[in-house]
This record gives sequence, C-alpha cells and structure tokens, in this order.
Amino acid sequence: MSKGRLRDLGIKIGKLPTGKFNAITDVNSVLVGHVTIKEEQPDIYRTGVTVIMPRDGLIGKDYAFAGYHSFNGCGEMTGIAWLKETGYLSSPIGITSTYQVGLVRDYFGEYSLENQDKGTYLLPVVAETYDGWLSAFHGKPIHDEQIKAALLSAKTGPVEEGCVGGGTGMICYEFKAGIGTASRLIETSSGTYTIGVLVQANFGMREQLLVDGAPVGKLLNYNRFPGPWQTPPLGGSIIVIIATDAPLLSDHCRRLAQRATIGLAHTGAIGYNSSGDLFLAFATGNHIQEDGNMVIPLTRTLSHDQMNPFFDATVEAVEESILNSLCAAETTHGQQNRVAYAIPPEELVAIWKKYKV
Amino acid sequence: MSKGRLRDLGIKIGKLPTGKFNAITDVNSVLVGHVTIKEEQPDIYRTGVTVIMPRDGLIGKDYAFAGYHSFNGCGEMTGIAWLKETGYLSSPIGITSTYQVGLVRDYFGEYSLENQDKGTYLLPVVAETYDGWLSAFHGKPIHDEQIKAALLSAKTGPVEEGCVGGGTGMICYEFKAGIGTASRLIETSSGTYTIGVLVQANFGMREQLLVDGAPVGKLLNYNRFPGPWQTPPLGGSIIVIIATDAPLLSDHCRRLAQRATIGLAHTGAIGYNSSGDLFLAFATGNHIQEDGNMVIPLTRTLSHDQMNPFFDATVEAVEESILNSLCAAETTHGQQNRVAYAIPPEELVAIWKKYKV
Amino acid sequence: MSKGRLRDLGIKIGKLPTGKFNAITDVNSVLVGHVTIKEEQPDIYRTGVTVIMPRDGLIGKDYAFAGYHSFNGCGEMTGIAWLKETGYLSSPIGITSTYQVGLVRDYFGEYSLENQDKGTYLLPVVAETYDGWLSAFHGKPIHDEQIKAALLSAKTGPVEEGCVGGGTGMICYEFKAGIGTASRLIETSSGTYTIGVLVQANFGMREQLLVDGAPVGKLLNYNRFPGPWQTPPLGGSIIVIIATDAPLLSDHCRRLAQRATIGLAHTGAIGYNSSGDLFLAFATGNHIQEDGNMVIPLTRTLSHDQMNPFFDATVEAVEESILNSLCAAETTHGQQNRVAYAIPPEELVAIWKKYKV
Amino acid sequence: MSKGRLRDLGIKIGKLPTGKFNAITDVNSVLVGHVTIKEEQPDIYRTGVTVIMPRDGLIGKDYAFAGYHSFNGCGEMTGIAWLKETGYLSSPIGITSTYQVGLVRDYFGEYSLENQDKGTYLLPVVAETYDGWLSAFHGKPIHDEQIKAALLSAKTGPVEEGCVGGGTGMICYEFKAGIGTASRLIETSSGTYTIGVLVQANFGMREQLLVDGAPVGKLLNYNRFPGPWQTPPLGGSIIVIIATDAPLLSDHCRRLAQRATIGLAHTGAIGYNSSGDLFLAFATGNHIQEDGNMVIPLTRTLSHDQMNPFFDATVEAVEESILNSLCAAETTHGQQNRVAYAIPPEELVAIWKKYKV
Repeated sequence: MSKGRLRDLGIKIGKLPTGKFNAITDVNSVLVGHVTIKEEQPDIYRTGVTVIMPRDGLIGKDYAFAGYHSFNGCGEMTGIAWLKETGYLSSPIGITSTYQVGLVRDYFGEYSLENQDKGTYLLPVVAETYDGWLSAFHGKPIHDEQIKAALLSAKTGPVEEGCVGGGTGMICYEFKAGIGTASRLIETSSGTYTIGVLVQANFGMREQLLVDGAPVGKLLNYNRFPGPWQTPPLGGSIIVIIATDAPLLSDHCRRLAQRATIGLAHTGAIGYNSSGDLFLAFATGNHIQEDGNMVIPLTRTLSHDQMNPFFDATVEAVEESILNSLCAAETTHGQQNRVAYAIPPEELVAIWKKYKV
Repeated sequence: MSKGRLRDLGIKIGKLPTGKFNAITDVNSVLVGHVTIKEEQPDIYRTGVTVIMPRDGLIGKDYAFAGYHSFNGCGEMTGIAWLKETGYLSSPIGITSTYQVGLVRDYFGEYSLENQDKGTYLLPVVAETYDGWLSAFHGKPIHDEQIKAALLSAKTGPVEEGCVGGGTGMICYEFKAGIGTASRLIETSSGTYTIGVLVQANFGMREQLLVDGAPVGKLLNYNRFPGPWQTPPLGGSIIVIIATDAPLLSDHCRRLAQRATIGLAHTGAIGYNSSGDLFLAFATGNHIQEDGNMVIPLTRTLSHDQMNPFFDATVEAVEESILNSLCAAETTHGQQNRVAYAIPPEELVAIWKKYKV
Repeated sequence: MSKGRLRDLGIKIGKLPTGKFNAITDVNSVLVGHVTIKEEQPDIYRTGVTVIMPRDGLIGKDYAFAGYHSFNGCGEMTGIAWLKETGYLSSPIGITSTYQVGLVRDYFGEYSLENQDKGTYLLPVVAETYDGWLSAFHGKPIHDEQIKAALLSAKTGPVEEGCVGGGTGMICYEFKAGIGTASRLIETSSGTYTIGVLVQANFGMREQLLVDGAPVGKLLNYNRFPGPWQTPPLGGSIIVIIATDAPLLSDHCRRLAQRATIGLAHTGAIGYNSSGDLFLAFATGNHIQEDGNMVIPLTRTLSHDQMNPFFDATVEAVEESILNSLCAAETTHGQQNRVAYAIPPEELVAIWKKYKV
Repeated sequence: MSKGRLRDLGIKIGKLPTGKFNAITDVNSVLVGHVTIKEEQPDIYRTGVTVIMPRDGLIGKDYAFAGYHSFNGCGEMTGIAWLKETGYLSSPIGITSTYQVGLVRDYFGEYSLENQDKGTYLLPVVAETYDGWLSAFHGKPIHDEQIKAALLSAKTGPVEEGCVGGGTGMICYEFKAGIGTASRLIETSSGTYTIGVLVQANFGMREQLLVDGAPVGKLLNYNRFPGPWQTPPLGGSIIVIIATDAPLLSDHCRRLAQRATIGLAHTGAIGYNSSGDLFLAFATGNHIQEDGNMVIPLTRTLSHDQMNPFFDATVEAVEESILNSLCAAETTHGQQNRVAYAIPPEELVAIWKKYKV
C-alpha cells in the first residue's frame, strides 16, 4: 500500500537522526495495526481503522503519562476528559472515519471486557477525520470483527503508510494522503530517547503545501493530471499521535502535543475553521500500574529545561509524517467518480531542489 | 415510571419559583425524549437513552451558545472539542450508558444525514454514566431504531423521571435513581428568564446524602430494607444539562455549567475519583444560523454583573433535579440478583422535618 | 491577633483527624509569615501580606508539583501561566490586597535576585482579595521592607489567623474574617499523609453562612450589634492554598484544587460574579531540582484510585479554614467610619447545637 | 527610533492588503503609547512600557470581547483569569519588562481610580518579556509618572517600532528587536474588516530565523559584525496582541490568538522551554457597557465558517510584526559591554531574493 517515503526522494526534514524504522514503532513497545476497507459493493467504501497500542498491548493495565492539545476543535477524540483528569493514557488509540468513531470507541470497551488480562479500557481514546468525499458515508462498512482485526494486527517494525487503515480515504492539501509516520532520536547526557509520530492527515488546500520549505503546492503543474482538478470540500482534519520512551510526565506530554502545531505550520497549515486538529502525546518511560496499589513507583523524569530537543524532534517528525502520508499514498478513485491524485514525486523533488538551502 | 417528586413530599429547594412543569422543558423550545429498555432475555437489561432537543428539533441549523465544565473527568461526553472551539451547541444531547455512548453518537450523525431539513449534527454531544451493575453490559441492547424513537419522542410538557431513558439502570447515593429535572424562574428588569436542568444521576455513597441540608443518608434506618444492603461499586457519575432562554453567550454558559458543582455539593457529593461529573449549559436567547451567512444577527446579551440570580437558580435546580431523580425512581431488580432500592419517602420526610429551618 | 478557633467552640468539621497545629504548617517544611499593616495616618490602612513558603525557604531551587483551579476568575494570581505549563510551584506564595499584588510580585523577584542561594523566583505566585472597604486604597501602605519582613518571618508552628497579614482588612459573609487554616491527616497503607489548607476569605452574604451545616447566617440576631448593619459591597473573593506532603503530581494537585469548591459550598458559597475564587494546591512529596540536571529522580506517586480520602480531607480543611478565619477575627473599624463585626461565638454555637446531627 | 520596516526592503508577507499604517492602529479606536527608558546612570537601563488602548481610552467602561492563548507559559500576563471568565478585555494592555510587570499592573489600577470617567481597570492586563541581558535589572528604572506618560501618549497613526517602549531592551533571533506591528484588511460580503497586530519580540536563536521563508538566520555572514558574536541566554519570549474591528465574540478571539502560533512558526520559532509566548486577541465590533445595565445590546457577530480569512490575516500580520520589530531596531549597547546588533537590511534582502517564489 505504501508507494514510497519522503526520504526515498532524497529529502530529509530537519537535523536530528531517525530511529531504525523512521516510524512511531521505533518507540519501544509501541505497536501499530491497520484494517483497510476498500469495497465497491453495495457502496464504494474507502475507509478503515488504525490502532496504536503502547506497552505491547498492555496499556489497559500499565498506563502511560499523556497530554492533549486541540489546535482546532472541529473533530472528535473520545476519552479526553479522563486523560486530562489523570494525565494518563489507559487504552489503545484508534483513528478512523467521522461516522464510525463511536463504533470503534464502543468496541474497544467491549474488547477489553473480553480480554481482561490486558486490563480495562474504561474510556477509550478514538479519533477521526472525514473520508466522506471518497467513501460512502451511508451504511456501516466496518464491523466489530474488523476493529478486532486491527487490534490484533498491531505489531512493531515498519509501518504501512498512505491509503491504509484510518487513512484509506483521506486527502491532504488536495492530494491523496492518509497515514504517515516518522521518528527522531535525541541524544542526551542520560541516554538516547526516541520521539515517534503517527498522523492521519486530511486537511489543507493545494497552494498551501510546503515541502521542506519549498512551495510545492504553488508551483506544481496541475495540467499534468488527467481531467480537471477536483477540489474536495474545504475542511478536513489531522490527528497527530506523538509517542516517546522518555520518562516524561503529563505536562511534558501536553507541551509536546502543542508543538505539533509548529510541524503543521511547516507544511503550510493554518488551522482552518472546519479542521479537527487534535494532538495527543504519551510517554512510556514510567510505568503506572494502579491495580489496587496506592503507591506507584516512579523512577525519574526529565527537566523542563531540557525539553528543547524534544520539541525540535516533535516538530521535525510531525512535518515528515505529514509528507510521508502524501508520498506513500496512491491515486484513489472513490464514490461519485471522484478521484484524489497522488502527488507526483518527480515534480515534488524538482521544485524542492530549487529551494533547498 | 415516575413515582413522585420532591415537592410532592412538601420539600422545596431554595427560594426561587419554578416554571410550569418544574422541568427543563419549561425552557421554551426544549424537548425531552426517552427510550427505556427493560429486558429479561437473553440478558437482563436496564438501560436506555434520553434525548434533550433544543429549538423544537432544529438545533442542527439554529445553534445555541453553550459552555462546558468537567468537575471530574471520569466520563465521556462527545462533541466537546467543537463546542469549546465555537461556543455553540449544534446537535441534540443524548445521555445513555457507558458501553453504548458511541453507538448513540454515531446514530445522531446518521439521523441528521437522513433528515437534512433539520440541519447537520456534525459532531454530536452524547454523554454517559455507567449502568453495568444492574444491567448486563455484554450484548447490544440498543439499536438505531430505538435511538431514533428517542429522538422522535422528544416533546415539551412534563418530563418522566427516575427509571426512564438513560436513567433506567442508574443508582445515586446507593438508592435507585436515574433522570431528574427541575426549573427556576428569574425575574429581572428586562423580563423573566427560565433556567431548566436535567440530570442523569449515578453517583455517591449513602451516608453522604443530604436533602435540603438534612443528613438523610446518615440517619435512615437501613434495617427496614429486606435483606442485606447491596452497595454498588464506588464510582458512578452525573451528567448535568442546564438550559436557559436568556440571551447568554458561551462564557456565561460555561459559568453556569461550573455552578452545577455547588448544586452537587448541596446533596453531599465530593466528586470522587471514578465519577464522571460533566456539565453542559446552553442558552437559546440568541439564534445562530450559519448557513452560508457571514453575519449573524444577535440582539443582546446579559451583563455578567447580573449573573448571580442565574447562578442561584442553577444551584437550586441542580440540587432539586438530583433529589427528583431519587424520589421518582422505583426499586429495581437487575442482573445477578442485584437490587437497588427506592428511597423511602416517608422516612426521608421525617428526617428532613427535624432539620428544616 | 487570633481570637479563637472553631474547635475552641466545640465544633469539629468532618471526620478526619487534624495535624498537630491544625494548620497548613502541619505539612512538613511549609512555613507561614505575615506582615500586618494597621495605620491611622495619613490614611486608615487595614492591609498586609501573608507568605506561604514551602521547602523551608528553598522552593526556588527545589520545586513542588502543583495545580490550579479558577472557580470564579474575578481575581488575580500571578505566575499561573508557568505553573500550568510545567506543573511546578517554584516560588513562595504571597497573598495580599488587590492594589498591591503587583508590588509584592515584583518584590519576590527582586528578593530572589539578592538571595540566589535560595534559588530563583522566576515568575512568582502572588494572589489577592480586595480590602478596599475597610482600608484606604489610595497611597501605598506597603513597602519592599515589609514584604521582606513577611518572607523572613515565615515559620512553622501555629499560624496566626483572622486579622493578620493579607487578611487584615478582609470580610467574609459580612463578618470580619481574614486568614484561616486547618489540616487533616490521612492514614493509608503506605503511611500517613497530611493535607494543610490556608485561606484568605473575603466573600459572601451573611444569610448564606453555614457552620457545619447549620444556617447560622440566617438565624443570627442582627439587632444585637450596635448600630445598623453595614453591608460591604457584594463581591469579595477567596484564595485557597492547599499543601500536602504526599508524593502527588500536578494532575493530582489540580484535582485537589478543584475540590476546594466543595469546601466553599459547605459554608454557603455560590461563587458570585465579582468573587475571585482561585485555588492552588502543591505537593512536596517529590523533589524537583532542575539545576542543570536533565534527569530528576522521582521516587513514587499515588494512585488516582486512592485519591478519595485526599478529596475528603481537602473539603473538610477548606471548610474549617474559612470558619477559622471568621472565629479568629476581631471587630475592626476602618476608613469612613466603617465597621466589620466579629461573628459572636456564643450565638454561633447556640444555633449550631440545634442543627448538629 | 524606527530604522525602517520590512516593506521598505521590498518584502511583503502574504497576500492580503495592509491597512493605512500597516499597524495595530489601523483598527479604529486602538491607540498605542510608549515610554522609553534609556539611562546610563546609576545603572544602564534599556527598558520601557508600551500601552495598547482600545476604545480611544474608554476600554474601562466599554469592554471588548477577547480571547487568550498560551503557546508556552514561561511568562506573565496579568488579568487573564478575569478575561477568561467573562470573555472581555476591560483595561488597556501594558507590555513591559519582567521585573516591573507588577508595578505597571498596580499603576493601571491606581490610574483608573483617579480617572473614573474612563471606567475602572479592575484587573488590568499587563505582560512582559525579559530585557535583563541589556538592561540592569536591579533598581527601579520606571516610576508611576512614566507609566502615566505611556498611557497619556497613546495615539492613533503610525506606530514607532523597534527599540521603543517595552521593546527597548528586547532581542529576537539574537538580533536587536523590540516592538513591531502590522495590519491586514479582509474584504467580505458584509464589509471590510481590519486585523492589527502588535508584538514585543524577544525570542529565538539566530539560525532559526526565516524571512518570508528564506533562511536568513542560517546564511547571514556573521563575520561582518565587529567583534565576536554575543549570544544572549536562550529563552526570551513574545507577547502578541491582536486587534480587530470585526464583531467577533470571545471564542472567535481565542481562535485568532491561537493562530499567532502559526505566524511565529513562519519566522522560525519552536516555542522553546523558557519562552513566554502569550497571545491575546480582542474585537471592538460590539460594545459592552455593563454600567448597571443588565441587557447589553449586541448587533451581530460573524459565522465561524467564515473565519478563515481572519486566520490568514492574523498569521500574516504576526509574521510581519516580528520582522518589523527586527527591521526597525538599531544596534544597542547595554550593560556589561554587551551589544545586540541590528540585522543588516541589505544582506537580509540579498538572501531573501534567492529564495522568493
């Protein structure tokens, strides 16, 4: 499903090194699973679910510190009242389409009732962006079994990007996009930490698109595409999930989440009215096992004074994740004869070369 | 379903007059609908959905200013990111059980797609409390048709309380409770305004319960109940919805929402860890019709300096709504031979009489 | 300056035991200092500053986790943007009068520049309530030397209450009040923890006042006071500071801070429009020494599941602190022949006895 | 004091037209005043106060809707609790240096007591950034008379930029900076609206600086400066004030405030740990006169659906304001033989030309 990645084109965002997979799975214990729905009958569906599972599946009984930021609230992310109250992430994270976010959220709860050895997903975190331009929004293309498959398929290693999972029907800067991921390593006096990011990108107007600072969206030759350009309705959204193995607390995580805004800005985003730009960061460096135990051992945290490289890493990885979601996606035909084109990599590179420093 | 109301016992909370029905429906255009599920086969279900529909059903195209407060975030209320971003309520409000909040949320969206003359419920507001002590939480007792029935049944006039709708399986201060409502009138130099409240009450320990200041929970004779007292697991939650016809803006509404905390405190609540105490207030006094029109005519708002009677009214109506949810509910048998007793009205009154001023 | 305390009247709030001093100073390392200004010339001043100094004076280099809640934002507490960003308290806390909160805030910074062995108070926390009914607000009654004296006088042990420090000119429920404090002990399987509270109380209408649930404000015989009752302008405010030695994190602290609302409600408060009801909680159980060190050792924290006794303790201690501020204060004559009466203890007790359970 | 502006160099940010002065004063009734302190004895001071006064000086009795966003809370802005509670700006806005923000805040209150015909500044809004690298921070260089002079000097028309007022000692991307301003016009079907921005810029590392997308900070020849480059301590801050004459409500304003983040990002900012990046937006299009009047007439507001051009305008004007603060500032010598260099305009233009689209 993944056509390619930004780095395959010779473009590197920022200055920090990536992790092994340049993916959120570079953060130890963070698994990713997808279920992709592409159906032509009875309706045309381009949709799915992506799951991010920290703690190798045990996040329901070994929580992670977490923080949230809404850059523009035209979206849904369930479970946030409890996440903000406690500072904890205590469920897997699902990302899907607008009209089925409730279904996925309910199923996460049901799944945990049936798998209590993995803990309880009391108030699960599930977010959405809108794929209803390409995918029929009537009918119920996704069923519990498929959500379960997404949960069970979660694994470490390289992450499929583009038109997969929750990203199957998504469009970014008017090009076909979807899921993207990236990671960065931070060397410190106390060891190396990893920041991993995964986005479901579905926002923006084509003339806004910047690639590593180059105005690719403005300069692309749109006559090269067969037929007239079809502009999806303005709106769209982006869900950004940031993971780290550093021993951060909830306040650090909320700060990382807000930094996603800068990564978005680097690709050209303004945060338009109908965009649901919701960001969540979690940190696995401390373990929080609440089962009947009042005292939770913590080992350490990091000084706020030393957060700057984490901020840099977040900004770089968010920018690259968005661009990866574009590079990996393939031209997709959807309902009502609509088509969302893949961004042409050669032209992208050609424009970028003129502007690189 | 409604056994009685607090005022039937001769007990009046506070000093302000009530509206005609002493219910949230005293606020012009606010409708309430319930669907109640009581099944014995294949599992024992005590659950349902309650719907609050402002604007006589047209809230999807004539928004209301609204505000939100989380007193304790161990709960779910969808749609809040958008409500906080815009200051608008733009969908009906659903209240149901924890494991089906997603289902109801998704269906609201689907319903609006099929009924676009009523506007669009882009990011619907649906909240929950937990009825899984009395009601089986496996299986899916509620279906789209029933949610639709709740929406279509919404009407003005007296509101059923107690074991109805979303309140069917709820327990408050260890007594059977559920839905409760109340209202207050506020006389001002610019006319009379109404505050209406509806709660789904499902929290508290019996010894905490205060009725109009009287320590009813402490002094009740628990030996009067057949069999040993069954204490539901600590936790529970309360959803509070506050409506007014005053021309308030979102900031006023958020202030009203936070005042629900005081009403809770008057009944004995502390806001324990596992309680999802989420409050939403909306005001219908200005109309917000965004359909393609940049300029939205507003007529007026009220001075913050004059909010105190609105705060008083909110506090009184929240307190009385909680007590009404208790007075109206009937003893209910649920799964696993569990029973939640109705509070005995005569004893309640007898204790109250000793303490009234 | 302290006339007496609530417990001297035989009234105990709640069920939890108090610490040794029943004061915020029961929390190890928390010091309190006051400077009290009572001048008749050139203007009549009833004002002052109260200082709360955690870490035995070293809070500028050994931070404490902290959280904040605004129940009603008609007040000023400086330093909150940074406290919310980091989750840390990193300066002493000053409480003073509205028109000099800036002066005290600036001086804290200057003091720390001159005493860098104690760390840096980068963005100090200083709060206010309004004493301008009794005290002239023109002129500048307080000077740097006096603020310094308050800082240097901070000590452990019993805390003066009533008309001292920042509370010198304050009025609560129309009676003379000011500073009040209380504490509670919480026994847990992992040891005993202390919650200490200090308030500067300056809010409310007399008919609202409840003492341990008894409607003292309504039933007092106001004819007993010489001359007609003088009602201060509606408004006022309350600053609540909550300290604990438990190893809580910032999210726990913010939860404690919000629970102060319930303590206020127990004394009759509604949170009227012009009241600045700002609450801050901090926890000394973990040490945060950021000086050049990226890794901060933490030892442990407590489960959110076990926060309920901390919530109870906070509610009890806030309620008792407010009542202590009333019991300790003495009738005070101020500018323009105004007088704020002390609450008469015998009558208070007489009314309370009728209502106690 | 103003050396020049970005547009004098032929560089235009964005696509929207500017107002007459390309300044915050293009928003009708918004006045700006400065007091600049440059002293050599007894200490070297480079400091001052800038005042933004909406409503031609009557903001104390004719409030404006307002919203706030903290991108990074390492700073102080007083008055925010009340602004967030009500959604109103009700005082002038002061911007000054860290160690005197309290002094300015207190004086605003005192000034309003002496000028009650202009209304009351109950809880004034005063913000700061840190000028203590160039300016001595011991001593008290600013006195009430000077703050009064800043208030009285507030006027419409062109705004002095660079090393004036609160910006006198400020440094941005390691170059001398200070105050900057810009404006944009938004044509709509309901008329033309203006967005005006004023910043006090004091943040960033030189290699981060982008000018209209060009990596000026990276490519400048630093050997051209006499002597070795002096890097101020990392940190700094930026205060952004956004004004509009559109009839926006508080939620719209908060959305504009958060959009300042994108403008910052366009100049290279990340929001480093010790930067106080606090943003406030206000809208004068509705009048809020609370004096004893419960009902406040409003005329209209704008649809959130139509906010995108306002977001664009805010982003453009914030970016240009920051760059104007750099272009206008002159090389400044401060305490301890420190020097902050003006950015050399010819080199800036030369680099920009290579990268412009």
